[in-house]
Amino acid sequence: MSGDNRPIGIFDSGIGGLTVLHAVGELLPAENLVYLGDTARVPYGTKSRETVIRYAMEDARFLLSKNVKAVVVACNSAAATSMETLRAKFDVPVIGVIEAGVEQAMNVSAQGKIGVIGTYATIGSGRYETLIRERGAVSVISQACPLFVPLAEEGWTDNGIAMDTAQIYLRPFMDGAVDSLILGCTHYPLLEKTIGAVCGESVTLVNSAKAVAMRLKETLTAGNLLCVSGEGKRAYYVTDSPERAHAVGSRFLGEEMGDNLQLVDLMEFAE
Amino acid sequence: MSGDNRPIGIFDSGIGGLTVLHAVGELLPAENLVYLGDTARVPYGTKSRETVIRYAMEDARFLLSKNVKAVVVACNSAAATSMETLRAKFDVPVIGVIEAGVEQAMNVSAQGKIGVIGTYATIGSGRYETLIRERGAVSVISQACPLFVPLAEEGWTDNGIAMDTAQIYLRPFMDGAVDSLILGCTHYPLLEKTIGAVCGESVTLVNSAKAVAMRLKETLTAGNLLCVSGEGKRAYYVTDSPERAHAVGSRFLGEEMGDNLQLVDLMEFAE
Repeated sequence: MSGDNRPIGIFDSGIGGLTVLHAVGELLPAENLVYLGDTARVPYGTKSRETVIRYAMEDARFLLSKNVKAVVVACNSAAATSMETLRAKFDVPVIGVIEAGVEQAMNVSAQGKIGVIGTYATIGSGRYETLIRERGAVSVISQACPLFVPLAEEGWTDNGIAMDTAQIYLRPFMDGAVDSLILGCTHYPLLEKTIGAVCGESVTLVNSAKAVAMRLKETLTAGNLLCVSGEGKRAYYVTDSPERAHAVGSRFLGEEMGDNLQLVDLMEFAE
Repeated sequence: MSGDNRPIGIFDSGIGGLTVLHAVGELLPAENLVYLGDTARVPYGTKSRETVIRYAMEDARFLLSKNVKAVVVACNSAAATSMETLRAKFDVPVIGVIEAGVEQAMNVSAQGKIGVIGTYATIGSGRYETLIRERGAVSVISQACPLFVPLAEEGWTDNGIAMDTAQIYLRPFMDGAVDSLILGCTHYPLLEKTIGAVCGESVTLVNSAKAVAMRLKETLTAGNLLCVSGEGKRAYYVTDSPERAHAVGSRFLGEEMGDNLQLVDLMEFAE
């Protein structure tokens, strides 16, 4: 028995979600993975709720056209707005990066004092705060860190500028204010070392990419959908500029993307 | 005689072009100005050439529906790709931020050693380099500075991080390598002080926003299109999230946007 050989679909507004694909590949090496980065319309965070839901539906429809057995919403903006709509419309399991990160933070937190960092759009949506409070946290502190994305894209992840920037943004989490901190943006795992150095040992960092991979594994196991002895094939799709995605993508992926990267037009997946 | 009272139209992919509107308002205080920021589709820089041209055409059609007498292309990505198409399709003068910046740099440069900074997309387009070489420059050095945009948006324009970042990005322009430097992105005028401090007195900074305002004035004067005693009215349009545009916009504008900011749907201006 090789189990369910259908691929897992992962989508993001851009290439940051490749950190999620990387974490899924580490935890579930046999699974075939299909990635969609909507690079023509990145970022989703500055767009209205209605627009983001529409885009997320198109992304998911594209992945389902590739016969995926589950959909991972790696994009925080889509996960903050579209989970209910996606679950109502599609029959496969839909796993979101925000719910997974919150669950993991509650599991590792000793005192229930949770911090979360993300883009302005993610923090402004209030979705992390709402879910964390629903889970009974003692306190929640959130902070937008907009410079972290370009720092990660530049590869400036552990120089003095990254350290100084982290020291400004992470000040609200110092002196025991939180005991765990959710990295609520797909780009942030690249800065994990610097963020950890600034926060110190008393704060446990929650890498949303790894958290979503763990939740995916649980869901596939429960639904008897695991692929036990597959080949771990990869297919990457972007909606604009494959050259650029190729150049930056390997930094997020932690390996070469090879020649499995294709341009796709989502027009036919619009409703 | 009050001259030609029709407004001047200015468009950008986002809110950065408000630095251009500000410069135009300073130089031509009587003119009525209409601004369009295509915030639903920002940034243009990561999109394909064909897509940017299509968007630029929609932006210009919207402005012409407001009866503008001239169109200013404040967006570097649009100015790098769409000037010929815009001029072929529309009868009003079309002024682009790149041509204006290059002209100004050649005017102020003593030795013809020109530098240019911008986003990855602008620098990668090669448009500045091509125009500068056509004008007979001795040498051209260009450098992408992607962190400058979020620094400007955060208001971190003269702190230690801005200074350290500028020192890394501006290294190619040191030690007499250039005598003038074009700020080839609408966000960069906010960092003018820090960039000037790092480059030193031997490098003349060319603020593209001011350059395009001067070129616009020349063009309107030559075409007998100046408004001599108008009211200097303002109307701002964005394609998504007016609240966000309002919050960040005043920093770029250098004044309050008031209640003249409206949401617009460009759908009807598509071809």
